[in-house]
Amino acid sequence: MIDFAKVNTRHLEAFREIIGAAHVIVEAESLDNYAHDETEDLHYLPEVVLKPDTTEQLSRIMRLCQQEGLPVTPRGGGTGLSGGALPQWGGVLISMERFNRILDLDERNLQVTTEPGVITEVLQDAVKEKGLFYPPDPSSRGSCFIGGNIAENSGGPKAVKYGVVKDYVLNLEMVLPSGDVIWTGANVLKNATGYNLTQLVVGSEGTLGIVTKIVLRLIPLPKFNLLMLVPFRSAENACAAVSAIFRAGFTPSAMEFMERDALDWVSKYVDSSTVKIEDDVQAHLLIEVDGNYPDVLMQEMEGIAGVVTEFDCGEILFAEDHQQKEELWKLRRRVAEAVKANSVYKEEDTVVPRAELPVLLKGVKDIGRKYGFHSVCYGHAGDGNLHVNIIRGELTEEQWNGTLKEGIREIFLLVKQLGGTISGEHGIGLVQKSYMDVIFDNTSMQLMRQIKQVFDPSNILNRGKIFD
Amino acid sequence: MIDFAKVNTRHLEAFREIIGAAHVIVEAESLDNYAHDETEDLHYLPEVVLKPDTTEQLSRIMRLCQQEGLPVTPRGGGTGLSGGALPQWGGVLISMERFNRILDLDERNLQVTTEPGVITEVLQDAVKEKGLFYPPDPSSRGSCFIGGNIAENSGGPKAVKYGVVKDYVLNLEMVLPSGDVIWTGANVLKNATGYNLTQLVVGSEGTLGIVTKIVLRLIPLPKFNLLMLVPFRSAENACAAVSAIFRAGFTPSAMEFMERDALDWVSKYVDSSTVKIEDDVQAHLLIEVDGNYPDVLMQEMEGIAGVVTEFDCGEILFAEDHQQKEELWKLRRRVAEAVKANSVYKEEDTVVPRAELPVLLKGVKDIGRKYGFHSVCYGHAGDGNLHVNIIRGELTEEQWNGTLKEGIREIFLLVKQLGGTISGEHGIGLVQKSYMDVIFDNTSMQLMRQIKQVFDPSNILNRGKIFD
Repeated sequence: MIDFAKVNTRHLEAFREIIGAAHVIVEAESLDNYAHDETEDLHYLPEVVLKPDTTEQLSRIMRLCQQEGLPVTPRGGGTGLSGGALPQWGGVLISMERFNRILDLDERNLQVTTEPGVITEVLQDAVKEKGLFYPPDPSSRGSCFIGGNIAENSGGPKAVKYGVVKDYVLNLEMVLPSGDVIWTGANVLKNATGYNLTQLVVGSEGTLGIVTKIVLRLIPLPKFNLLMLVPFRSAENACAAVSAIFRAGFTPSAMEFMERDALDWVSKYVDSSTVKIEDDVQAHLLIEVDGNYPDVLMQEMEGIAGVVTEFDCGEILFAEDHQQKEELWKLRRRVAEAVKANSVYKEEDTVVPRAELPVLLKGVKDIGRKYGFHSVCYGHAGDGNLHVNIIRGELTEEQWNGTLKEGIREIFLLVKQLGGTISGEHGIGLVQKSYMDVIFDNTSMQLMRQIKQVFDPSNILNRGKIFD
Repeated sequence: MIDFAKVNTRHLEAFREIIGAAHVIVEAESLDNYAHDETEDLHYLPEVVLKPDTTEQLSRIMRLCQQEGLPVTPRGGGTGLSGGALPQWGGVLISMERFNRILDLDERNLQVTTEPGVITEVLQDAVKEKGLFYPPDPSSRGSCFIGGNIAENSGGPKAVKYGVVKDYVLNLEMVLPSGDVIWTGANVLKNATGYNLTQLVVGSEGTLGIVTKIVLRLIPLPKFNLLMLVPFRSAENACAAVSAIFRAGFTPSAMEFMERDALDWVSKYVDSSTVKIEDDVQAHLLIEVDGNYPDVLMQEMEGIAGVVTEFDCGEILFAEDHQQKEELWKLRRRVAEAVKANSVYKEEDTVVPRAELPVLLKGVKDIGRKYGFHSVCYGHAGDGNLHVNIIRGELTEEQWNGTLKEGIREIFLLVKQLGGTISGEHGIGLVQKSYMDVIFDNTSMQLMRQIKQVFDPSNILNRGKIFD
């Protein structure tokens, strides 16, 4: 039994005193905006939404909530896919939307210091103007916050060449549940100074503290890129081509897989006529290379085209210009929306060593047949990251919320057996926590629970996310 | 007061039963080999050295040591520079030298699974034969163990383009102090599944558990490289050129700085005549670019040469062939030995954002003048990682072991002020722990201590390293 306190008028007065009445939200219709994210159909209403905009305000809020035993849920852009930002216990929801300043774009050191409420694309555009590049770009980059990306260790299409969020985070300012404020590291590219608290916090889904400042490393912006869309007559062949490309020595800057349904649905959804899909096509790879030397990129595209030809592909579409590239990327980026618009679905975020993708895909389909569900798969194939969208279709309520769980568990057991894990970039949050035992034994889970306890002894911060 | 038990005959019998008598070492002269590493002149004798070669043996040993309250110190190749592998409390030293098998070189997935006692260079050569690349290469790569590299989060010259050890570790098998065995993650390139135990263990200096299997990601081996040595008339100008090269959009695969004394001493030490140093030269940069397209590399070298010319450099030496490249790299790699042969010294492992290097170098020299010490500086300038070798010279015992500590603290305070930290790649171990307060406040140190307690509640494993 959870023994959290309820938010009362005394608490509200204290919050108003700390951040001003305009930033203490209690109106029901406003609260409802913070009751869901992009995860299926979960809904939890907070008792109050607070919008601090300084570390010191947040520290005072946290101290008060800890003293009073109020549950606290931090929230970024609300685009999460695992329910990590949902206020399961009601209580206090901290919206980080006013922490929206880019504090220091340090061109001398190729670093940027930012607040967590900055929208990812805004940050990317700001550094791009200086010829710099912050690669991690989840599909939601136009609305997600950089802070949320850090909480979930987000990836996106560029991860295959440039790595994920954790590979760019140098240092974090964080408010602990006690209200104490720490910096986790230093603004340096290499660090062997004590435990890596920075990397412990990245991907911890807002359960250890609330990040208030972020130092990211940047890299020079590649000047050119080329893009091609390759159709395959077999989805497994498309997956097999992925690792062959890497084994041939190429490192594309994006390597996206889409099953036929995914591209069909999204083409209708965004009303695009760029892509004509032949009847015998079962899947596509969208492949990008980037760099500073156009001749080299042409050579690489030709080399990659040579590899995919060995996997029974159809006619390759080379994007002709910027506009066509944008069109192809729009199709890829909006697949999730299109699937969502088409049907109720559950999205799994499987990831395996990339050469095991064909086995995973075949396994997903076999398991689907066994449990009677259809799935639409797509994702960041270069990373072995396959998003499995299980379509509700004709499933009964009992199948959908009952036996399907066993089907998902079978998929995850296969993932584990292939050396993979149950989330590549979406996080565990609320929706995957009952499957954590597939990946981690009791000993590892106990270590994680005890680490949580070190940071949050009262267990008030985002309790019940990742594990119970 | 530390209340560790002493190793007795009953313990020795149990150890012999677990790993065989040949692998339980108690002879004084053999023990002495394990009493020091490459850190200055520290010396701690273990009571017994154990050489297990399976995870199960190590698990039984750990369980016994925990039950009996025996201190345990894990040791790799013994090349550490911060005393992390020294058995400060005597007790049991675990040598990982028999964990020396490369278990699986997975070319399909560009991954390798290895035991920790494999010598770094052996691993690098094995993957190179398959056209693959494991970049982190500390100067000691010919004798250090990959397990030690993980304990210290090692770097080396390639880090500037390819990152450090932490950027290659995907998954670790580890024996906890309780004897329990866990895997920290999964064999995948992206992972958002619970707390990042893998990254918590990397760089934890053998204080949280003993790693027994390591899964590393690999990348395609770049086919070509070019190397140049650039002399500068001012060391601060050399440092300033470093960040200018990156700001011009270049990412060299190595960018090493050496003060005049360093190159002078090592040239004599290895009896090399490759480099003629003009009288007015104060420092050098050794700059490498690598990739698959020779024309591009030539363009990049020319571009970099154009940048350094603006910093009052002398005549650039372009390495003509493989042999001359080897010669230049030998000079760089053996600087530390040469300095050691020349004088008693203490090595500091400072790291700052790279554009702050000139300020750091000037500060080190100013502080040296204040405290009366000479220093020889060199290091991985592209990472902002400057090794400061403080030369004993004419310092009295009281200065060397007394007031010098204040001088070092001043250097570290400057490092902190510049956004840096006190160790980039050597670790904290025994020799830097009294300076941890420069970087971390009490709250952060308490978090680290409590994390240690989660993994090692009896505090038997490498106790007293990183912090007391």
